[in-house]
Amino acid sequence: MYKINENYSKFPGSYLFSTIGKKVRVYGEAHPEKKIIRLGIGDVTQPLAPAIVDALHKAVDEMGRGETFHGYAPDLGYAFLRETIAECDYRSRGCDIEADEIFISDGAKCDCGNIQEIFSLDNRIAVCDPVYPVYVDSNVMAGRTGTYDRERGTWSDVIYMPCTAENDFVPELPEKENAPDLIYLCFPNNPTGSVITKEGLQKWVDYANQAGAVILYDAAYEAYITEDNIPHSIFECRGARGCAIEFRSFSKNAGFTGLRLGFTVIPKELKCGNVSLHSLWARRHGTKYNGAPYIVQRAGQAVYSQEGRAQLKEQIGYYQRNAAYIFDGLKSMGYTVSGAVNSPYIWLKTPEGMNSWEFFDHLLERVNVVGTPGSGFGPSGEGYFRLTAFGSYENTVEAVERIKAL
Amino acid sequence: MYKINENYSKFPGSYLFSTIGKKVRVYGEAHPEKKIIRLGIGDVTQPLAPAIVDALHKAVDEMGRGETFHGYAPDLGYAFLRETIAECDYRSRGCDIEADEIFISDGAKCDCGNIQEIFSLDNRIAVCDPVYPVYVDSNVMAGRTGTYDRERGTWSDVIYMPCTAENDFVPELPEKENAPDLIYLCFPNNPTGSVITKEGLQKWVDYANQAGAVILYDAAYEAYITEDNIPHSIFECRGARGCAIEFRSFSKNAGFTGLRLGFTVIPKELKCGNVSLHSLWARRHGTKYNGAPYIVQRAGQAVYSQEGRAQLKEQIGYYQRNAAYIFDGLKSMGYTVSGAVNSPYIWLKTPEGMNSWEFFDHLLERVNVVGTPGSGFGPSGEGYFRLTAFGSYENTVEAVERIKAL
Repeated sequence: MYKINENYSKFPGSYLFSTIGKKVRVYGEAHPEKKIIRLGIGDVTQPLAPAIVDALHKAVDEMGRGETFHGYAPDLGYAFLRETIAECDYRSRGCDIEADEIFISDGAKCDCGNIQEIFSLDNRIAVCDPVYPVYVDSNVMAGRTGTYDRERGTWSDVIYMPCTAENDFVPELPEKENAPDLIYLCFPNNPTGSVITKEGLQKWVDYANQAGAVILYDAAYEAYITEDNIPHSIFECRGARGCAIEFRSFSKNAGFTGLRLGFTVIPKELKCGNVSLHSLWARRHGTKYNGAPYIVQRAGQAVYSQEGRAQLKEQIGYYQRNAAYIFDGLKSMGYTVSGAVNSPYIWLKTPEGMNSWEFFDHLLERVNVVGTPGSGFGPSGEGYFRLTAFGSYENTVEAVERIKAL
Repeated sequence: MYKINENYSKFPGSYLFSTIGKKVRVYGEAHPEKKIIRLGIGDVTQPLAPAIVDALHKAVDEMGRGETFHGYAPDLGYAFLRETIAECDYRSRGCDIEADEIFISDGAKCDCGNIQEIFSLDNRIAVCDPVYPVYVDSNVMAGRTGTYDRERGTWSDVIYMPCTAENDFVPELPEKENAPDLIYLCFPNNPTGSVITKEGLQKWVDYANQAGAVILYDAAYEAYITEDNIPHSIFECRGARGCAIEFRSFSKNAGFTGLRLGFTVIPKELKCGNVSLHSLWARRHGTKYNGAPYIVQRAGQAVYSQEGRAQLKEQIGYYQRNAAYIFDGLKSMGYTVSGAVNSPYIWLKTPEGMNSWEFFDHLLERVNVVGTPGSGFGPSGEGYFRLTAFGSYENTVEAVERIKAL
């Protein structure tokens, strides 16, 4: 008789954003007359930029003609896209990354979730707390996290690195006696919107190189960085080629949440003994993945065109304006807020001692605004709440007005 | 110090089609004047049908306008596609499958590779021999296959079910004392092109229900079935809802190899104790996947439109004509051939006692035709060779002429 993967039964609840989606659906069905404003899940709302739409149409036409049809993509992505990324995202910032160290995929969520497969089940992971749930959840499924403590909301075998107001939402280095093997970092951070300076990140790289750890660096929000001295890539740090893997997304900088494109960078000298992690990931890609669609890879290339850059600068600016509007609005109401400056996320302390889910229900039921409960991202997120800047400007303004009226 | 997943180091070589790709590339670079005809990897060559191109353009335009833009897709796929599939692929054939039992994905390769994650690492798998390499390789990575015997080309913990000329390339039921937990079946078969009758498949369903096994049924090639009494879906069999998961692809019936779309069907009553496999796969989808692109799901819907069906019937007919041409041509040369009738694959015995890779090199170097060595699919494939019908008609004719001239 077959058996299931029992690790799945350890989950205390469903995937955070599935839970939120369900709650909102139930509320909406019970109150069809209410206009719900969704600032919860980090989904974009602006249409694809014209340069991207043009590239898609052109690629679709190619797919419709025998001479220019494209079947299976190369395992690791088309050279035209990998070379563009290497040049524009890395070499132009002084990062030493080659095109063949870039693996094109259908998004950073999949890559962040799948990367743990190439590591031993004995490895110990460390995560920021609060954090994007996929890092922990994918390790729960693999069996790396031990048992769940419902009281504390923590897994016995995970090293939590609290990110709180006290440390400005940037975690301390773990103790060397209790060093993790895999360290998930995400800056600009999801959910807190916090950033790390180049010097700060360099300390992590040095730590990882000394401790023999790998940093799994999620840079999905780098396009929102506005301040100087904030690294856009971990490969801006010395020695990162020996200890870091970086994830990037086209979802937030170019509105590809519904188009699906991302990439992972694994430097060739990142090795465990004489085995390169690059070769393991290439094997995984070749065996369990079949490439991102040609038309979507062409759309990705258009993101870096002169036209595309100009249009997307405007699009990101639109969301940044929303972020500032929410940040300023909440601040003026007396809320304790952070994030927003280098991020599309606004992180706020829930008022009047409400816990995160109480505030979620309060906002949903009283003013029909959807956010994300901080506790859904980890125990140190309790008492916090995330709002996103990815709504329309009109909805953003209205949401702030509604909260003001509470 | 972190460690890697040591299962990867157990592989005797690289992924079959990556190896072939590399060999062909090396040969092509050394002989740039030669025109290589590729009948190896099962990649299609005909352009997307007009109905699909139209649907893509329309969906791209929607993505370029604020009012019709689509962000993250629903976790399990858009209702418009799931309902169309449930109706056209299942209910119209008398199969009792609901739309919410269908999970849309970016292809059957990913689904076939990922499905093992929801099962225990203790489960024993059974595979046809020869077989599409992803089933075994994804289990090697997970650690379910034991040790590799280089001499025999087999894994110690895998149950191989030989498919040979003696059994008409349809495997026998495994012995009950040594029953597998997970049984991978693929009909029409890759690589042999063989099929199973409805009565034959019913025996497997009855066996699985008695033995407490799950059948992982890969029906990626069902569109090539021409004969009656050959099931297009395992859900045509009584009791399959209690023991089967089915994988489908848009790659071969609609030319989506470069567009990426597939789906997996998990009936809700398929349960291990009180845990439904549907809920586990939904959790995996929600946590580690972010949906197939909206535009590609719209293209998938067009596959089922009246126009789309007519155009694709012609496209499949084109490849079927190629299959018949290769089959007849080789037969007339005295080769022992099978497949082709209900499949885009032609399976032939290598001539003059050559082994599979010798024949691969022979064809590549002597007549610049690429096929796939049967031994790459498993030990019982040794001495066999696969050719695909997915080339252009002109290339197919030329390849057969070249082989004739050998």
